[in-house]
Amino acid sequence: MDLKSLIRDVPDYPSEGILFRDLTPVMADPQAMKFITDGMSEHLSSLKVESIAAIDSRGFIFGAPIAAKLDIPFVPIRKAGKLPPPVIGVDYALEYGTARLELSTAAVDKGQRVAVVDDLLATGGSAGAGMKLITDLGAEVVSAAFLVELEFLDARSALPSGIDVFSMVRY
Amino acid sequence: MDLKSLIRDVPDYPSEGILFRDLTPVMADPQAMKFITDGMSEHLSSLKVESIAAIDSRGFIFGAPIAAKLDIPFVPIRKAGKLPPPVIGVDYALEYGTARLELSTAAVDKGQRVAVVDDLLATGGSAGAGMKLITDLGAEVVSAAFLVELEFLDARSALPSGIDVFSMVRY
Repeated sequence: MDLKSLIRDVPDYPSEGILFRDLTPVMADPQAMKFITDGMSEHLSSLKVESIAAIDSRGFIFGAPIAAKLDIPFVPIRKAGKLPPPVIGVDYALEYGTARLELSTAAVDKGQRVAVVDDLLATGGSAGAGMKLITDLGAEVVSAAFLVELEFLDARSALPSGIDVFSMVRY
Repeated sequence: MDLKSLIRDVPDYPSEGILFRDLTPVMADPQAMKFITDGMSEHLSSLKVESIAAIDSRGFIFGAPIAAKLDIPFVPIRKAGKLPPPVIGVDYALEYGTARLELSTAAVDKGQRVAVVDDLLATGGSAGAGMKLITDLGAEVVSAAFLVELEFLDARSALPSGIDVFSMVRY
């Protein structure tokens, strides 16, 4: 399926010089969403993933149907201040300043095989932070899976080595 | 299924006197998520819903599997500044100050039968705002569906009359 034909390019958003990849037409296409859910689920199933940890908030849109399809737990990795205690958190760098992701301490079990899921892999800042939260709780990140990967930003070199990185569309 | 047994009560979060209903244990239970997806899908299907508009961001976790199950479009209603133009927006009142929800103008079709989905119905501020965005684009909101309804806050009297309001757990 040609997913790129459903992704709308928005020049100069959110700021000048940035080409934004709008995924809302993909979400509005049930056949495309089924294709994506099936593709990601098949890949993560082959890695014996036991839990889907999705990143706030577009990661939820792709992660929840995968967890449903694989019949495994869904875990939200959230922006700061959204989860009740007890949580752990990690700060990560943005272009200007920092952001923080948090995870409930009860979210994963020690040794559990977890996949981090998000819509888009850019510099890898939020994905790396999400992966750190999972491993800080003693679980194992066996894959980080994305619908879109912006290869020219080379996030793979910034992410922990030896962990599977999966994407279905690359720019 | 006893969903309440999976909902964790967190006293005094996010502020003193508030009893927070933590839904993360529900999300981590694949059987509970299947029960919720099936229950909501059956109800919305009976109303001939053609599109699922879910509210940023926990609404995405429940809305995306429903859209998948019903094989219909998923539409994100997002917090301000997250969607590329063209969008429409609406401000709504919080306890202190206001918040804003936005929707892509291409998100729904005129006359389309849309359900607004979120995790929890409290005062109805965000649900009402989401419903207004849908109708402002000429589509029809045929249901607002939630996992949890806080009945003591009486959101139903604040929401537009004549529109179905559905919830699976009530406090």
